[in-house]
Amino acid sequence: MAEGFETIELLTPVDVCCRCKIDIKMVSLNDTATVTSSHGVEVKADQKWADTDFNDGDAIVLPGGYPGYMNLAKASKVGDVLRKYFDAGKLVAIICGAPYVLAVNGLAKDRRMTCHHTVVDKMVGYNLDRKRVVVDGNLITGRGAGCSLDFSLALISALTDGDEDTIANLKHGLEIED
Amino acid sequence: MAEGFETIELLTPVDVCCRCKIDIKMVSLNDTATVTSSHGVEVKADQKWADTDFNDGDAIVLPGGYPGYMNLAKASKVGDVLRKYFDAGKLVAIICGAPYVLAVNGLAKDRRMTCHHTVVDKMVGYNLDRKRVVVDGNLITGRGAGCSLDFSLALISALTDGDEDTIANLKHGLEIED
Repeated sequence: MAEGFETIELLTPVDVCCRCKIDIKMVSLNDTATVTSSHGVEVKADQKWADTDFNDGDAIVLPGGYPGYMNLAKASKVGDVLRKYFDAGKLVAIICGAPYVLAVNGLAKDRRMTCHHTVVDKMVGYNLDRKRVVVDGNLITGRGAGCSLDFSLALISALTDGDEDTIANLKHGLEIED
Repeated sequence: MAEGFETIELLTPVDVCCRCKIDIKMVSLNDTATVTSSHGVEVKADQKWADTDFNDGDAIVLPGGYPGYMNLAKASKVGDVLRKYFDAGKLVAIICGAPYVLAVNGLAKDRRMTCHHTVVDKMVGYNLDRKRVVVDGNLITGRGAGCSLDFSLALISALTDGDEDTIANLKHGLEIED
């Protein structure tokens, strides 16, 4: 969570992980736990970046939002963790403007991905797709805030090896099963 | 916002209103501005209930989430404001378990509506529909968290008298236009 994050893009993955009993932590890039969204909403993170052991994680999720994705891109420590996750074959899920963080760090150039139309020009050399969600190996990307739910369902599917009961129960709770 | 609100159901309407430059205020039912979601996420409201002049509003939105919707149902002041909004023909938008607040207050018995499957048994005498979103006059209802975006688009459409440019721009920004 960086200053200027997008609320739906942050909280939809958090919400669905909680519903599936998957432990997810909101990590603040600020010196404080509270972070302010792109629309001025203050949300309290679970923990600060400095207090987080990223070696423990199975997946990392980066929300977009402006200027949130720019703040993620400026922080070299974010790029360092992404590189470690790619090197270890762990899941990386990035939505909206945040795929720009990959470009800034020269990561995942061999992958298909999607991103928000406002950052397309910055993704030089990347293989972009106009789908709402793209899954290519351990990289999941989403196009924008309105795609947050599909993006989050792809994340849950990847984290549970496509467990159909988990997805069916989740959709039932969210009221999207029919 | 009552303790135990659903994050997506609260913040999706807030998000789309902000994107459309529609003034929306998050109002805390707590004595404090900070309210904790059904999944333990702390979000700061814009203002407290006691500091809010509801006469100013064009619409009221109630998110669900457990036990958030029960806390809304227990608060007679919430029912009083809903009654005033119905009496004045103002927009009322309610999602997930929160239509139960209508039942507790005996409101809108003549309307078609939808709600979360977990509260259907409590909606005695109501004309329920299994659609994801139902619009009947000035009442908009949504079925659950996964329907938050459709619910919010219906809210924006009602608030802008169906302005097509506003909806098109919103969908473009959210990346759901195609």
